[in-house]
Amino acid sequence: MAEFRQDPLTGRWVIIAPGRAARPHQIAAPNSSTIHEACPFCVGNETMTPPEVWALRTPESEVNTPGWRVRVVANKYPALDPRGVEADRSDGLYRSTAALGVHEVIIESPDHATNLTALDGEHFANILFAYRARWRALTLGRRWRYLMIYKNQGDRAGATLEHVHSQLIALPQVPPQAAEELKGAKQHFGVTGRCVFCDIIRREAEQGERLVVESNDFVALCPFAPRFGFETWILPRQHCAAFEDISDRNLVAFGEILREFILRLNRLFDNAPFNYLLHSAPLEDHAAEHYHWHLEILPQLTRAAGFEWGSGMHMNSVAPEEAARLLRGAAV
Amino acid sequence: MAEFRQDPLTGRWVIIAPGRAARPHQIAAPNSSTIHEACPFCVGNETMTPPEVWALRTPESEVNTPGWRVRVVANKYPALDPRGVEADRSDGLYRSTAALGVHEVIIESPDHATNLTALDGEHFANILFAYRARWRALTLGRRWRYLMIYKNQGDRAGATLEHVHSQLIALPQVPPQAAEELKGAKQHFGVTGRCVFCDIIRREAEQGERLVVESNDFVALCPFAPRFGFETWILPRQHCAAFEDISDRNLVAFGEILREFILRLNRLFDNAPFNYLLHSAPLEDHAAEHYHWHLEILPQLTRAAGFEWGSGMHMNSVAPEEAARLLRGAAV
Repeated sequence: MAEFRQDPLTGRWVIIAPGRAARPHQIAAPNSSTIHEACPFCVGNETMTPPEVWALRTPESEVNTPGWRVRVVANKYPALDPRGVEADRSDGLYRSTAALGVHEVIIESPDHATNLTALDGEHFANILFAYRARWRALTLGRRWRYLMIYKNQGDRAGATLEHVHSQLIALPQVPPQAAEELKGAKQHFGVTGRCVFCDIIRREAEQGERLVVESNDFVALCPFAPRFGFETWILPRQHCAAFEDISDRNLVAFGEILREFILRLNRLFDNAPFNYLLHSAPLEDHAAEHYHWHLEILPQLTRAAGFEWGSGMHMNSVAPEEAARLLRGAAV
Repeated sequence: MAEFRQDPLTGRWVIIAPGRAARPHQIAAPNSSTIHEACPFCVGNETMTPPEVWALRTPESEVNTPGWRVRVVANKYPALDPRGVEADRSDGLYRSTAALGVHEVIIESPDHATNLTALDGEHFANILFAYRARWRALTLGRRWRYLMIYKNQGDRAGATLEHVHSQLIALPQVPPQAAEELKGAKQHFGVTGRCVFCDIIRREAEQGERLVVESNDFVALCPFAPRFGFETWILPRQHCAAFEDISDRNLVAFGEILREFILRLNRLFDNAPFNYLLHSAPLEDHAAEHYHWHLEILPQLTRAAGFEWGSGMHMNSVAPEEAARLLRGAAV
């Protein structure tokens, strides 16, 4: 079973998951929407994945057979496993524990689509509906403290299977990146009495230079200090700490702005590789006044390299004002 | 001029360096050691780079002409600039300042070598001699607090020019990755009265399962909680906080173990892409009892992806015990 291990210098935890070395390499195929015999995520190949834990499917269709539009399964090569006992091992220098958690795959289309740009608005809403359904299911039982959904689109962004999919993880602890955000947001709230994300939305809507696209309920903006060129965040205008509390109407609106952004990015860069990550409050803080759920989209047009790994800082050669200007101009 | 900008959520600093967008794309050429007309790092093309700030060259040769074996120049597309005034701009939400610093390139061979494996032991010693020379020069004047040398080997590791080279940066502040290490090392020293790196070396030498190769003066080991598959650290056995204090004899020994490791890694993975980074104490702490300089080598065989960027944790599918076993078996 995989392990969490802690680096004795930095306190940083890593997941050592040897089973994942057996993962399939990327299937090199052109972007198309035909069905691939060898792709475990294509409709008709349901037996190639672990059994489904959730699916959006036609009423007459049966579990683990065709008839679905979005399908969620356990990751066949999980980095985290809900079975097992948390047994902390520490010897004064080194510390480790079983990598408890949940690791699921959200298969976002029955066809072999290799880029979200192939999907229509209704399909985006279906995908986000699946995200919310799994998020809500995993908050039950109160076993996990933190959930995250992330996507790797394209080989350069770390995708090992090209068929469109995202991944969901549930963790027993809040991971460092989220802990940093939460700490900063709490500090800002302590000083100002306001949510820092609400302040950012207000400021960016007024100034406009880093705004990419907005709708009644959402804004997409390039953050002031982006790690990656064309990094963009999508946030709901109305304060809301937890993604799982999103309304049906806002799920549709979220899908619309996400699709709009992805089409624009692809207009600038054909088949742009990117990661996105859905950041939401820890499960026990779903009503927090200081936190605000959001999606961070990180295009992978250049690579993090020695500077970033060694310093913990990022070097970005595209100013967010310039990125936003180009993305605004790439209207579809 | 480039800027340091601080993210209001996480406190994370990034360098926004728009001028770097003009960097050359990688020259796609097979690994060879002939001279390339278009490569600014090849001997004979000295006028294609900024003037040299240091070179190891034959006594009769002139600055900025052939006759050198290792040559150091300012980065033509610097992310950091020593000219300019530190003007902190803060408006309650966003904070930025001029990106003061030094950004140099160490050109590691006059021939168009694209992989360190092409270089012999003497050449390795020459390269490390250049590292130390620049390190010592930049400690004078006491303007900078932190120095780091890093290498991007191969496109997957973020290299934009294939001719072997490393980069050196000097920063007015200690960056977050180094600050974390220093904090952990200080804590360990506070509790035990010992250097944590010395403790790690002792433990790993005793146990042996994560040892890769050792010599009289150095050890190469896979750390207990590695971020990347086959991640390996090289450390001097004798406690020493600051790289710039290394002796001539140890420079040669450091080159030997580094070359040995790189040959082994390339035996396992042909043309393995990797980053390495030289971590040393901040300049004012060069005699610190709690810190120990070392080189971290991070092979880039898989990619950091959405999980890593969103959580701040790493997922690694190769246990360090297995990586060390394979590297031990790849003797040259």
